[in-house]
Amino acid sequence: MSNKYASIDNLRFLWKDVHQSEKLFKHERYQDYDVESIDLLLNAAKDLCDKELHPYVQIMDEDPARYEDGKIIVHPQVEKVIALAAENGWIGAEFEYDRGGMQLPHIICTSLNYIAQAANNQVTGYLALTGGAAGLINSFGSQELFDTYVPNMLAGKWMGSMALTEPQAGSSLSDITTSATPTAEGYYHIKGQKIFISGGDHEYAENFVHLTLARIEGAPAGTKGISLFVVPKHRPDSKGSLTPNDVITAGDFQKMGQRGYCTTHLSYGENDDCRGWLVGEPNRGLKYMFQMMNGARIEVGMTGVSIASAAYYASLQYAKERPQGRAISNSGKKNVQQEQTLIINHPDVRRMLLLQKAVVEGGLSLLLEASKYNDLQEVLTGEEKENAQLLLEILTPIAKTYPSEMGQVAISNGLQVLGGYGFCTDFPLQQYYRDVRITAIYEGTTGIQSLDLLGRKVTMQNGKAIRLLMQEIGKSIQAATQHKTLEPYALRLGEKLVVTQKVLEHLLGFAMKGNHQRFLADASIFMEFFSTIVVAWQLLKQAVVAQEALTSGKMNYAPDFYESKILTTRFYFKYELTKTEGLAQTLMDEEQLTLVGDKELIM
Amino acid sequence: MSNKYASIDNLRFLWKDVHQSEKLFKHERYQDYDVESIDLLLNAAKDLCDKELHPYVQIMDEDPARYEDGKIIVHPQVEKVIALAAENGWIGAEFEYDRGGMQLPHIICTSLNYIAQAANNQVTGYLALTGGAAGLINSFGSQELFDTYVPNMLAGKWMGSMALTEPQAGSSLSDITTSATPTAEGYYHIKGQKIFISGGDHEYAENFVHLTLARIEGAPAGTKGISLFVVPKHRPDSKGSLTPNDVITAGDFQKMGQRGYCTTHLSYGENDDCRGWLVGEPNRGLKYMFQMMNGARIEVGMTGVSIASAAYYASLQYAKERPQGRAISNSGKKNVQQEQTLIINHPDVRRMLLLQKAVVEGGLSLLLEASKYNDLQEVLTGEEKENAQLLLEILTPIAKTYPSEMGQVAISNGLQVLGGYGFCTDFPLQQYYRDVRITAIYEGTTGIQSLDLLGRKVTMQNGKAIRLLMQEIGKSIQAATQHKTLEPYALRLGEKLVVTQKVLEHLLGFAMKGNHQRFLADASIFMEFFSTIVVAWQLLKQAVVAQEALTSGKMNYAPDFYESKILTTRFYFKYELTKTEGLAQTLMDEEQLTLVGDKELIM
Repeated sequence: MSNKYASIDNLRFLWKDVHQSEKLFKHERYQDYDVESIDLLLNAAKDLCDKELHPYVQIMDEDPARYEDGKIIVHPQVEKVIALAAENGWIGAEFEYDRGGMQLPHIICTSLNYIAQAANNQVTGYLALTGGAAGLINSFGSQELFDTYVPNMLAGKWMGSMALTEPQAGSSLSDITTSATPTAEGYYHIKGQKIFISGGDHEYAENFVHLTLARIEGAPAGTKGISLFVVPKHRPDSKGSLTPNDVITAGDFQKMGQRGYCTTHLSYGENDDCRGWLVGEPNRGLKYMFQMMNGARIEVGMTGVSIASAAYYASLQYAKERPQGRAISNSGKKNVQQEQTLIINHPDVRRMLLLQKAVVEGGLSLLLEASKYNDLQEVLTGEEKENAQLLLEILTPIAKTYPSEMGQVAISNGLQVLGGYGFCTDFPLQQYYRDVRITAIYEGTTGIQSLDLLGRKVTMQNGKAIRLLMQEIGKSIQAATQHKTLEPYALRLGEKLVVTQKVLEHLLGFAMKGNHQRFLADASIFMEFFSTIVVAWQLLKQAVVAQEALTSGKMNYAPDFYESKILTTRFYFKYELTKTEGLAQTLMDEEQLTLVGDKELIM
Repeated sequence: MSNKYASIDNLRFLWKDVHQSEKLFKHERYQDYDVESIDLLLNAAKDLCDKELHPYVQIMDEDPARYEDGKIIVHPQVEKVIALAAENGWIGAEFEYDRGGMQLPHIICTSLNYIAQAANNQVTGYLALTGGAAGLINSFGSQELFDTYVPNMLAGKWMGSMALTEPQAGSSLSDITTSATPTAEGYYHIKGQKIFISGGDHEYAENFVHLTLARIEGAPAGTKGISLFVVPKHRPDSKGSLTPNDVITAGDFQKMGQRGYCTTHLSYGENDDCRGWLVGEPNRGLKYMFQMMNGARIEVGMTGVSIASAAYYASLQYAKERPQGRAISNSGKKNVQQEQTLIINHPDVRRMLLLQKAVVEGGLSLLLEASKYNDLQEVLTGEEKENAQLLLEILTPIAKTYPSEMGQVAISNGLQVLGGYGFCTDFPLQQYYRDVRITAIYEGTTGIQSLDLLGRKVTMQNGKAIRLLMQEIGKSIQAATQHKTLEPYALRLGEKLVVTQKVLEHLLGFAMKGNHQRFLADASIFMEFFSTIVVAWQLLKQAVVAQEALTSGKMNYAPDFYESKILTTRFYFKYELTKTEGLAQTLMDEEQLTLVGDKELIM
């Protein structure tokens, strides 16, 4: 099997040619970067991942994280990866220089994240959560908290986690009950149970910093009474020595996939000696946490794309090497005297490969697009900044959901390309199939993301975010119509925007009539519908750049590379974008079938 | 979690009320059966599966079949299940009385198969393959072969397997190279490698009878030179004692799912002492094998439905017990003072449950329909018999594929209902998700089934099979239009038949122009399109029977049972049948994107 899991050429085409990151480098914040330095950085990252991450992806699956004698055991390579990532400045790379970071643009951090996750999705979470936890302290914590925790986290000595879920409160964070009792000393006593805490403990860090949601006694009910605390596994004293902080690791959830990555159960304050330090103001914890969650949603979307990328290249390689059967001749007759053909020559196998390619390249481009808006909202001002924020906000649930849902479909097609071998543990496809399944659940399920998209993001500021997004899509349609070859696709995407308007008018009609239940009942279908259109946009954008290169002859890659981009876009429009026909019909259908009726009719 | 994995009420509604098996019992072959005896038989089977199969489904997954010291180790419960199945006459139950069977109608065998596979899909294959292998000997073997092997197989003392695949020949059976050299003694020397042999060896049978495809020296190339042999692991002499037959078990493939079920690698004739006995005539082996394969295809479709059934009931139970979040109020505001609601009350969870229910009940009905035609072709004569055969032939690839493809989707939705717990090994959904994935590969992948449907079944006898099928669907539409409540769905299904005609005219146009490559390039899309319509038919059929019961008041079950049937049908028409819009558009699209071009454009 091939060891290829990501394409640096494709990635470069996206961050440089399609999303034009060079424009970002003109802003003061990113002025130290140019195309050359980013090329160097990403190529070095790829080399490192080739050597230190990818070779362990199957090994970690076969030797899963587990709980033994009160300890979480993970594969020893985790230690090395953390050290190398810290050494290379990957943890908190987007932080300002004076906060210990590299001021690396988000779009480049996301590119880096793609390479690392595609190489080995079971180890990157440790880094991402540590960066995210440090980011929360950096953004909202006091200087003292920053000084106490962040430098050790960026150095990879201490790890971070986000501790939200409790046994009775997963999707519904309103219901968390972990308590925080103030003390005269300024810290809080923390007591409660947290489950599904990814990367929450192992032997290869001397401390863990759990960014923990808890409720201060007497706080209002619901999400408005949630505060954010730094709760370390060991509390450091002023001299830097560590004392156990009564955070007990009570277990490790055994999972179908991402088996090398631990998922812990933490118990706080069993001996009434667990101390937490408030981050920012009381009762604003969920708002703060959303900064981390939004970043984490992009990262989870990237998990979907990255695993699908590794699966795609593995199945592509197989298809190029495995002979089986003969091409159907035009007469319909089979000539058994002929040599067997490589399976990549069978139309159905080509279809399965192109589907994977479209999902990977469309999804990756979408995640980079969202990250670009994250950069723009850092460097722009006034209305431009606000617009970038709105675009990031509306793209986030889509960029989380499309790759996690369609990543599953893509990988399933990859597995199918291998036939029976795809189901066998000697081949990597079955692992990718298991690993990717969690992405539609992590950080807000697809159902939650869909409610966020339709119920919150579409309606925010009277629909300004979606209008801005439509305008952006409109610009790409405009650019595509300049090319005879792409005009039909531009027209088709334009028609889809019209259908989107109609669907939204229909759905918003329910909201206006005060029927919010009905408005949101098919939010997941709307997500599927709209995300399919948004990814068509991302592919059309790529086709435009490819066509321009072919037309002008100014090519950075071989002509086939660009032709392949256009083929992928055409494929998506024929085989994927067409799905929106039926989805629109479902969304416009007047029947109400999933709202609770008088009777229990599901049996 | 619930232990419910199948609904006997639903099954009974299907075999009795919808598919009217009583009509079969009027034929001489089945005259010993009536509704009461079948009720008894199926209820007893359910009790047995409750006690002896279902409790082992997770245990077998956690203690997988494996190869140790030249032996295949499987869970000891396999021994008990084989003994009980034999005792109850389940192996070869459809055989004639004078051949050791119960002359049980296929539709009832299929019903039994549903219960057993839903209870534990890792153990039923041993029984099904033994029955299938015995069936081949019964149909095409000599009396001597029958006497030597079949009674021991039906008694569960010896097991059977079907040995087709070789390392270089999986989907392409033309290319098998296992050789058979005739001897003066009448048997053949067999030499070769067979892989992916399900149920091919374990400790709990004293012998294994491998129905093996091999090529007699000098036979024509391709499938026309393949013969079928009985190749036992141990050859019996005339006194019944067993001598090793040089069939070495070389390994057990480790798989993502169905881990309790062994998948062996067999090596024949390493010491030039492997003997095989020809079944029927030389060079007709593949034709014979297709009898077994067609039965196996129905069984694999049933694996998909059955696992989806177990997953559905598990996720339904969870949804009825798990509180999380609050119903969206019509104002769109959340009242956090309210108690959490059960997740079954969330519209998106209801959607995921109804989708599962529709796939299970539609898929199961389709498999019973196909089995009914299998019975009809046994008992009818002349054109009626031929029509039943044609209907069985055209339904087989659909009944194999829809449940295996949509079973995956259904189970994925079931897993999603459980959120994070769905991904954890403490809950059964993740196992079902892994187990079901093989069904789209076993016994001809979805791609192969799709070529069979469009390339062979649609065109056979100048389209007679599909015309007959359309007529049957037309009858159900006619019946549905008699009910005001169902008329809109009847009309919609009628429209889909018109679209099917258009699509087929378009595709057959390519075949007529001699462009078979293009004709078949999107066969898998046609399968998805048409199978979605065929399952709509099966659900509408059920709705008609339900509506008749509600209207007439002649009810065998509670009114909610019938209301739920109608709700499920309406759900399918709104959420699933709509998909055919986009699929038809894809099929009618003029672009050719997956045929091999001049250049390698997939990279």
